[in-house]
Amino acid sequence: MLFLNACKNRNGDRPPVWLMRQAGRYLPEYRTIRATKSFVEMCTDPDVAVEVSLQPFRRFGMDAVIVFYDILFLPGVMGAPLVFTDEGPRFERPLRTSADFDRLGRADLTSLDPSKGTGAILESLRRLRREVPREAAVLGFAGAPFTLAAYLVEGRLGQGVDRMRRFLNEEPRLAHRLLELLAQATGEYLSLQAAAGADALQLFDTWAGLLDRKDYAEFALPYEKIALEAVARAGKPSILFVNGCTHILEDMAASGASVLSLDWRLPLRTARERVGAGLGLQGNLDPAALFAAPDAVRQRTSSLLDAMSSDPGYVVNLGHGVLPETPPESVEAFVEAVKARKGVRTAALDPARGLP
Amino acid sequence: MLFLNACKNRNGDRPPVWLMRQAGRYLPEYRTIRATKSFVEMCTDPDVAVEVSLQPFRRFGMDAVIVFYDILFLPGVMGAPLVFTDEGPRFERPLRTSADFDRLGRADLTSLDPSKGTGAILESLRRLRREVPREAAVLGFAGAPFTLAAYLVEGRLGQGVDRMRRFLNEEPRLAHRLLELLAQATGEYLSLQAAAGADALQLFDTWAGLLDRKDYAEFALPYEKIALEAVARAGKPSILFVNGCTHILEDMAASGASVLSLDWRLPLRTARERVGAGLGLQGNLDPAALFAAPDAVRQRTSSLLDAMSSDPGYVVNLGHGVLPETPPESVEAFVEAVKARKGVRTAALDPARGLP
Repeated sequence: MLFLNACKNRNGDRPPVWLMRQAGRYLPEYRTIRATKSFVEMCTDPDVAVEVSLQPFRRFGMDAVIVFYDILFLPGVMGAPLVFTDEGPRFERPLRTSADFDRLGRADLTSLDPSKGTGAILESLRRLRREVPREAAVLGFAGAPFTLAAYLVEGRLGQGVDRMRRFLNEEPRLAHRLLELLAQATGEYLSLQAAAGADALQLFDTWAGLLDRKDYAEFALPYEKIALEAVARAGKPSILFVNGCTHILEDMAASGASVLSLDWRLPLRTARERVGAGLGLQGNLDPAALFAAPDAVRQRTSSLLDAMSSDPGYVVNLGHGVLPETPPESVEAFVEAVKARKGVRTAALDPARGLP
Repeated sequence: MLFLNACKNRNGDRPPVWLMRQAGRYLPEYRTIRATKSFVEMCTDPDVAVEVSLQPFRRFGMDAVIVFYDILFLPGVMGAPLVFTDEGPRFERPLRTSADFDRLGRADLTSLDPSKGTGAILESLRRLRREVPREAAVLGFAGAPFTLAAYLVEGRLGQGVDRMRRFLNEEPRLAHRLLELLAQATGEYLSLQAAAGADALQLFDTWAGLLDRKDYAEFALPYEKIALEAVARAGKPSILFVNGCTHILEDMAASGASVLSLDWRLPLRTARERVGAGLGLQGNLDPAALFAAPDAVRQRTSSLLDAMSSDPGYVVNLGHGVLPETPPESVEAFVEAVKARKGVRTAALDPARGLP
């Protein structure tokens, strides 16, 4: 399996390729289903979630299929009332005081009703692992404790998570209590996903890059570690994504993740020099680059491959999720440019050809 | 004047201190005025704008007074209809097509009515330079072309300026046309502010850190340079702020700015090592740190000073603007901790004392 080979630093002819948020609104077949169902219904009905997870795989044949779901269902079932609106998800009562926190319990993740709670992702993973050919990986995922806590404190997607950063300064002990609770739950949740059939697990700490290095080391990294250790105990590789991670890369490398997923601002070769060999690296085309003409997409993908295709631990991906309205032709051009590289690793190792 | 000394790498006993967005809602005397006037009225009536600019200076005695205004009035008078709502400013018709752009003209900045247009900032600067003691600097400012263009394209504050990054890929020629137009206008605008009495001019390219290095070099830096050159021709020092600038610091150093204003994620000592001597550095306490107890604020400020107070080109500031609801006592603790450092430079130069 190309994807697991990359996690073990054993890339062969070409690196594996998939895209964060590869299932979604940019696909007409997704919009057809979405026209009759809510986002929550789509995530929590395994029939639909499996279908939607498979749509991009059928069209483009990526090397990994990520289960269709949302990182916020976990805190949702832990006691924080969650609504999905046209502007995105929102927690109805943002957590800011000690009393707010006392309402948040620790869910028994195994006993949840698959049609409503986090159980749905487990059932979807079981079915996906049966339906997806063995050559492709099935991926599970969760939000990291800091990012989940930021959503809970902000209430909704915020510019710069100012409210969360304020909370860390005003109520550091309460923050640690919340993060610990989320870390334990996230670790269990990822273990259950591994047992349900996920070949690897991605942890999204999307907002942790808004912390300085000291705060990242205090409020994000220790809780990422707890969740990632649970994945390691389950015997599966893990991927850690942090958006805007240029200033904390070395700390991420110490998280225990098997693969670091990097945003588009950090050149991958620089990242490789900074973290050394051994860790996988995933990324990092700017998702906005998929709005250029297909030729330009092929060109940009080619540049990524020129730099990284001889790297034994490289996974081709975007630097963040696919954006709404992305042309499907561009996603195709991106995936095809990688698949057309069969044998390039050998070529790139030819010293006469050199590397950029 | 302490501030201008820092711009010339001639800090004496202590570095100067001021705070981005130091005038604003966190001050009760600001809220008293805001209760009877709209934000736009406050910016565009020089009587009010001067009063509000002076409020933090009277309370805390910073070393610089920045004029109260908004970066979006310039594109506003250039032909983009702008509204200020409780959620922040918004352009009513986001610019996305060629036809949208043709509506945007180049304003004759000198002839604007001071009670409505960008003329108000010039009148406020004239009065401030008369009213503020010579020991303190009066600062003007503008949004940088990329950040203004991002507002125009997004319509309003957006997470990650996805729409703008998409636009750069879909319509690069149109983007350059818009950026060029904004750069010329911004350069003239800053020159007029210099002539009106500003001692130094800050250029806010808040969102340019969301670009990778290649896109920053193509779509942000060249237009910053045009605006900053106009400041240099006017014989005044300039300050360039970019949020999230860890990956583009060396490019910013080549912008022509006299001082680089850094967000909280890049340690200032590291920044100094990367850019070398000669440039001023401003920053960079996390604004969220002002929500900690005053003792903790003093401690964090002290750490900044321990690292940087012997640096001849250092300006103490936050890493971004003061947040809403910041306790005024924390701002006081921050400013006082700097002012109490008289003579520390000599002390810090004592090798027996060392530097952290």
